[in-house]
Amino acid sequence: MAKDKKLVEAITSMEEDFAQWYTDVVRKADLIDYTSVKGCMVLKPAGYAIWELIQRQLDDRFKEAEVENVYLPMFIPESLLQKEKDHVEGFAPEVAWVTHGGLNELEERICVRPTSETLFCDFYKNDIQSYRDLPKIYNQWCSVVRWEKETRPFLRSREFLWQEGHTAHADAKEAEERTEQMLNLYADFCEEVLAMPVIRGKKTEKEKFAGALSTYTIEALMHDGKALQSGTSHNFGDGFAKAFDIQYTDKDNKLKYVHQTSWGMSTRLIGGIIMVHGDDSGLVLPPMVAPTQVVVVPVMQKKEGVLEKAREITASLSCFRVKLDDSDKSPGWKFAEAEMRGIPVRVEIGPKDIEAGQAVLVRRDTREKYITPIDDIQKKVAELLSEIQKDMYNRALAHREENTHEARSWDEFNNIITTKQGFIKAMWCGDTACEEAIKEKTGASTRCMPFEQEQLSDVCVHCGKPAKTMVYFGRAY
Amino acid sequence: MAKDKKLVEAITSMEEDFAQWYTDVVRKADLIDYTSVKGCMVLKPAGYAIWELIQRQLDDRFKEAEVENVYLPMFIPESLLQKEKDHVEGFAPEVAWVTHGGLNELEERICVRPTSETLFCDFYKNDIQSYRDLPKIYNQWCSVVRWEKETRPFLRSREFLWQEGHTAHADAKEAEERTEQMLNLYADFCEEVLAMPVIRGKKTEKEKFAGALSTYTIEALMHDGKALQSGTSHNFGDGFAKAFDIQYTDKDNKLKYVHQTSWGMSTRLIGGIIMVHGDDSGLVLPPMVAPTQVVVVPVMQKKEGVLEKAREITASLSCFRVKLDDSDKSPGWKFAEAEMRGIPVRVEIGPKDIEAGQAVLVRRDTREKYITPIDDIQKKVAELLSEIQKDMYNRALAHREENTHEARSWDEFNNIITTKQGFIKAMWCGDTACEEAIKEKTGASTRCMPFEQEQLSDVCVHCGKPAKTMVYFGRAY
Repeated sequence: MAKDKKLVEAITSMEEDFAQWYTDVVRKADLIDYTSVKGCMVLKPAGYAIWELIQRQLDDRFKEAEVENVYLPMFIPESLLQKEKDHVEGFAPEVAWVTHGGLNELEERICVRPTSETLFCDFYKNDIQSYRDLPKIYNQWCSVVRWEKETRPFLRSREFLWQEGHTAHADAKEAEERTEQMLNLYADFCEEVLAMPVIRGKKTEKEKFAGALSTYTIEALMHDGKALQSGTSHNFGDGFAKAFDIQYTDKDNKLKYVHQTSWGMSTRLIGGIIMVHGDDSGLVLPPMVAPTQVVVVPVMQKKEGVLEKAREITASLSCFRVKLDDSDKSPGWKFAEAEMRGIPVRVEIGPKDIEAGQAVLVRRDTREKYITPIDDIQKKVAELLSEIQKDMYNRALAHREENTHEARSWDEFNNIITTKQGFIKAMWCGDTACEEAIKEKTGASTRCMPFEQEQLSDVCVHCGKPAKTMVYFGRAY
Repeated sequence: MAKDKKLVEAITSMEEDFAQWYTDVVRKADLIDYTSVKGCMVLKPAGYAIWELIQRQLDDRFKEAEVENVYLPMFIPESLLQKEKDHVEGFAPEVAWVTHGGLNELEERICVRPTSETLFCDFYKNDIQSYRDLPKIYNQWCSVVRWEKETRPFLRSREFLWQEGHTAHADAKEAEERTEQMLNLYADFCEEVLAMPVIRGKKTEKEKFAGALSTYTIEALMHDGKALQSGTSHNFGDGFAKAFDIQYTDKDNKLKYVHQTSWGMSTRLIGGIIMVHGDDSGLVLPPMVAPTQVVVVPVMQKKEGVLEKAREITASLSCFRVKLDDSDKSPGWKFAEAEMRGIPVRVEIGPKDIEAGQAVLVRRDTREKYITPIDDIQKKVAELLSEIQKDMYNRALAHREENTHEARSWDEFNNIITTKQGFIKAMWCGDTACEEAIKEKTGASTRCMPFEQEQLSDVCVHCGKPAKTMVYFGRAY
């Protein structure tokens, strides 16, 4: 019992300490556990099941987009990592190095992949010979390792699960199209499946991926007003192809370099779900990624007929991910537990309900109650799940809109950053020095240059020189 | 074009050189590629897709058996690996050691998991407090690393994909039941999904897993008469629990040690599928794990109406995993390619067929042809796929039975081992010295003590002392 108690102890409120609230939710919703390996975590059943649902639905969308899955080794020889100059500079400081195999020292040390561009290049170099071999649209589901100093569950850990797509194309245009296609696929997935609205845009030169020509990103706004980079898609042009000598014979019988892209999303998305939708009672899961969509809780379950009726109702809901909680805990306890775990719909059924031929349905997100005739439960649950999914998106969107501000002058920018939270839209000259100065002075980095541009003014919000583009600024995870 | 040619060059025949035949099939069916990392391979789309089908169907069976998926770190600190004496002796000589994170040397070196018993123990030690927390029936899908000297695609590589289940139970009986349940689940999966008959049995003391009380195994017979250990399930008793101090408070308020099991199957199964079912034209895939179950090949596809009809037929087969091969290769080429890749059913459709309102269906396994009215194709394909699945199993079973021999004396054993291939069933005294002598003299190891015992004689086939059990002997991969 001492163990159970931990669950329904009140968690820290968001207002009081958002970071602590996050940690409390992650632990009390039983998503992860810490381990003896610093910076690495255990994904427990409740956490891993969310990832499985993300994976399954994202993979279905990949397959529709003609992506094929493969698996490449987890190791990269040091000489291979070093082939592309910017890339090695970006990653070498944070990789884990293997120096011994069994009892013997290796001739060349190898790192555990932090990302697999170099491995895919090494593979494509042999696999691509002719225009007939193009395009290659490959993806892998795997874990990667980045030896981070500061770690937080889901948001930043030394090992994390993700997918990384790596493509090769005959020309620049096709590569650019694929880069944007995957970014849009990610954005649609976040909005439609995770109920998480995102800004689609391009990273600045300073913020782009090591070795990329351009990086596209989707940026979501968390409940505390900080941004979460939720997925990225990179166009490499022929930079890697030249470094790795990946050429193909075209129809005109000439040797040409391929054009490449890569794109990835990770378990970080689970952190996003928590921070976009959660509340002071715990997790709130979008129905599409809720491992349990409906929990049936019998009230006074020892009374004759209650458990039978609860089982019957559970069976009638088998088209959903449904669970019956027939444990010997009290109903109040079960309610709190179901809320902590973010189960979208709860069905309560007790002796009086049975007598009246009804049950009480409760939404997790709004806590609204619906007295529902037993025969209509299935239909009502279907309705509620679809409404919850939609409403969660709309609430998150409204939150983002309320917390997106426009700054037309440096004074205004400073005023917003000190008094408000969220995104700041502002014009920018395109100069990296200016971008760095803004970050140093305010802590706000450029999140992206959104696809949907507006002309807020003609001059850079910081330096007053002519503006090139509108940028979303924000403090970020 | 030079690249395509590689595919339909004749492969080495099985009779001539089985090992070379295997390598040829693996490469020409486009399952894998070699990499710059010695002993590691790329699983290409055709190879990975088989693994995805195995994974999906095995995972469904796991979920029916109340298994929950989790994910644990890929790293094990050296001190953790060393906690169970037999286990560290078994694995330490073949692990990859990480000594540096980024630019810094680690305080304690960590290895990449060769298997995760020690990590699960470390996790369970905190996660299990009371009898209410039991049983834990967890599994993870991941890759593991064993620094092998000799490697072969799928059969033995330095990194491979697998699942590893790790359970904790309140008592010895429940642990033993789970060990056997999972072994039987594996066996049923191999027989029903992979069409691969297996012998179910127990490993001898010498052959059991490092740290286990007992190890159960399923052993399949390859086409060349060698055995492949295809899945194992281990009962650890409370050995690991004592080494890691995993105790729980029972209902009687006493502290007790948990009893644990682990069980795994890997991409090695793909090697099994190749060597059980393949032939001199390439791969033969059981329909249940064939990424493409039906290929539609238009003949004279430039003639008006042919491609349209082929597309129509393909569309009508969308309830299967179907592909249309409308590339500009010749039909003969496409047939050979479909055979190399092991696609179970081929549909040929040309102008004459269209005129006659029919198509030609060809089974990959027997090459039998069926002239089929166009309207009946869907029904016929369904029939053929189910027949092929069944027939492939029966043929493999017949092959195993023909190649399973009984030896009642040491002369007989020697005679069989020098003139025949396959399994030898013989009585054994139970003495490890005898087991080692047999292996040294003949190269045949004990594969298992089968659940289905027979009393072939009263004395050990080797030493003549009283026999304890019947054993399957064989040369193995």
